[in-house]
Amino acid sequence: MPVFLDTTAPGFEAEFSALLSAKREDSPDVDAVVSGIIADVRSRGDAAVIELTSKFDRLDLTPETLAFSRDEIDMAVGDVTPDDRAALELAADRIRAYHQKQMPEDASWQDACGATLGWRWTPVSAAGLYVPGGLASYPSSVLMNAIPAKVAGVERLAITVPTPDGAVNPLVLLAAQLSGVDEIYRIGGAQAIAALAYGTDAVAPVDKITGPGNAFVAAAKRRVFGKVGIDMIAGPSEILVIADKDNNADWLALDLLSQAEHDESAQSILITDDAAFGRAVADAVETRLQTLERAAIAGPSWRDFGAVITVRSLDEAAELSNRIAPEHLELCVADPVALSQNTVHAGAIFLGQYTPEAIGDYIGGPNHVLPTARSARFSSGLSVMDFLKRTTLSQMTPAALRAIGPSAETLAQSESLEAHGLSVRARLDQLNR
Amino acid sequence: MPVFLDTTAPGFEAEFSALLSAKREDSPDVDAVVSGIIADVRSRGDAAVIELTSKFDRLDLTPETLAFSRDEIDMAVGDVTPDDRAALELAADRIRAYHQKQMPEDASWQDACGATLGWRWTPVSAAGLYVPGGLASYPSSVLMNAIPAKVAGVERLAITVPTPDGAVNPLVLLAAQLSGVDEIYRIGGAQAIAALAYGTDAVAPVDKITGPGNAFVAAAKRRVFGKVGIDMIAGPSEILVIADKDNNADWLALDLLSQAEHDESAQSILITDDAAFGRAVADAVETRLQTLERAAIAGPSWRDFGAVITVRSLDEAAELSNRIAPEHLELCVADPVALSQNTVHAGAIFLGQYTPEAIGDYIGGPNHVLPTARSARFSSGLSVMDFLKRTTLSQMTPAALRAIGPSAETLAQSESLEAHGLSVRARLDQLNR
Repeated sequence: MPVFLDTTAPGFEAEFSALLSAKREDSPDVDAVVSGIIADVRSRGDAAVIELTSKFDRLDLTPETLAFSRDEIDMAVGDVTPDDRAALELAADRIRAYHQKQMPEDASWQDACGATLGWRWTPVSAAGLYVPGGLASYPSSVLMNAIPAKVAGVERLAITVPTPDGAVNPLVLLAAQLSGVDEIYRIGGAQAIAALAYGTDAVAPVDKITGPGNAFVAAAKRRVFGKVGIDMIAGPSEILVIADKDNNADWLALDLLSQAEHDESAQSILITDDAAFGRAVADAVETRLQTLERAAIAGPSWRDFGAVITVRSLDEAAELSNRIAPEHLELCVADPVALSQNTVHAGAIFLGQYTPEAIGDYIGGPNHVLPTARSARFSSGLSVMDFLKRTTLSQMTPAALRAIGPSAETLAQSESLEAHGLSVRARLDQLNR
Repeated sequence: MPVFLDTTAPGFEAEFSALLSAKREDSPDVDAVVSGIIADVRSRGDAAVIELTSKFDRLDLTPETLAFSRDEIDMAVGDVTPDDRAALELAADRIRAYHQKQMPEDASWQDACGATLGWRWTPVSAAGLYVPGGLASYPSSVLMNAIPAKVAGVERLAITVPTPDGAVNPLVLLAAQLSGVDEIYRIGGAQAIAALAYGTDAVAPVDKITGPGNAFVAAAKRRVFGKVGIDMIAGPSEILVIADKDNNADWLALDLLSQAEHDESAQSILITDDAAFGRAVADAVETRLQTLERAAIAGPSWRDFGAVITVRSLDEAAELSNRIAPEHLELCVADPVALSQNTVHAGAIFLGQYTPEAIGDYIGGPNHVLPTARSARFSSGLSVMDFLKRTTLSQMTPAALRAIGPSAETLAQSESLEAHGLSVRARLDQLNR
């Protein structure tokens, strides 16, 4: 059974705080192993990567077969059904269209003293995308990571995807092809992250690494951070549904289960202003769990971490939502746009009962890589910005330097940084001659 | 002596690579100490913070005196000279004006299938800014961190600044006042970061922590990352000056020294297409070092890490600049705007000989918190974006769901995520009835 809370109950605050701070994931300490793997790849390059791939993926590679050839990709992609291909193409088109709108603009202006100021956005030169192998090898994640990189203008985009025992997911290769990925390596684990960050003879180093992975991959990303940029370290998935009673209980049950089926550590929460409706949804979840393919995952997630919270009003629901700062937030209420004005900490908001969260996972357009574990309080989902960086620009004229230089000199002196002040003073002296 | 390189020399590539990968900073391993301090503050709150402040800063506080009172701030600020105040006010105004232009726009549009898509930017609710005490207690850093936060709309902005033996820098308090800072605590070190991240009775927790600090502060920021957002972990400062021979050697010598005087680990590099001019600048550095107040810092920095590189052409200079990815880049050439089109990896570019880097440290307008250690390849300087996060929005209509829902269902099935597909199918079945 999930936990049932009610904001009018005396113990609510304590129970809600416990729900917020519940630890849902054990992070095994794999740092020592990962540190050894990274050092090995740095010193022995391809030889280390090949050995580790043989050991962990039972696959024997050579420097020449580390990457898929164009023919191998074409051949595998040929196995994709027309329906799957059409769906993936529609998703790619919609994700591309959404992310193209995110491209920020450069700026340049002259201020009152004659200085020209501004900034310029430029893409990261090379990016690497980690794609998990096996069960969690999701073509949708390839689209969600690769398309923003290519929209940003990343020149060289490499993917690493382990292929245990040589098993390849053709949809992953098709997704890479549709996204414009340049290189695909059949390697995984910490060794793939090390190869991308430091480079080997066969794998040129990249500047930024994104994409989900297991504990080894996450630890490796943390370790190479600084040498390269990384995206967030994602935790288990979460959904919060805020719903009034005028909803279909079964639809919302399925929405809650669509998070729960990802992972036993996933969390699904319903907030409603109608206690009876909350119970109806919980009943519908149990009914669906009886037949759901992934009930063995979704069941424990729902029973261990699920929650149904009854509130006095939708205003109160918004307050709790802001404390939860959910990764995914569905607003199934009469005026979802109005309510969304008050739910300010959330990775993605899905408005109204015809927008199940699964639309956002695949085909809506916005990114599905979103901040977990309450980090929507301070961070955003993946976007083109993750593959761009901003250079600020300034150009003084002699007049501008005369106008503002003396204040810079004053501040430099107050911070006891003499050369800073002198670098301005020397120019002013010349100009004032 | 700094190293002198020439791209026409046979050993250049090896020497340049060595320069790029030179380790300039020892990172003492303080992680165990920091981990203990954080655990202590989490369990004992203010009592731990007060004890640690007594131990490290020789200052006895109570929960009531952890924060400066408004009267204490007003009194200290009264000591600031009119010149210093005017300079700080001008700087604050210019930094604010620049950062106001960075505010990104929300978006909302309807696509061809009738779906409404978009995103919304909202500020982080509470931010904390670490300000070092002692020598490196720079009012300019307070402006550069606090103003973007307030421009972004951060409601609650707290500063922690240690005051060893009770010594306070009135300019730091004035900078905080001018920036609209809400709370100022006289605490520092890992204990200040822990208090900001986890909260105590006297210090409410924040969502994001920025600002420079020593090895203890950096280690603490790394540890609390995830619980809160952090800005970059800054390394020692760097400048690259690209100059042709039509420049004043003394001005450029001062620009190089203005980085070198920050820190013995700072790095100053000159690239020029005229070997004789390069030597003239190096000579001018030596001359200035004879009288410079901070010669004991700037001298070792220049001699251990400085470099003068002679190139065949400015195109070659741009290529090397992109490999260095400098924090600060000065372009002292006839057409700096043209050259800047090719120098794409840099934190901040200063165009032309009348724009010494020191202008950017204080008063130009752009931020002086910039990516170090080659991280300009993948990251940007501090901006209002660091205090904002983006929530994506999507709303399907029945028609939109009919148009794109089936493809989402197909993709969900291909990823074996049944509940995802069913959450779409249940709605489509109802709509198709």
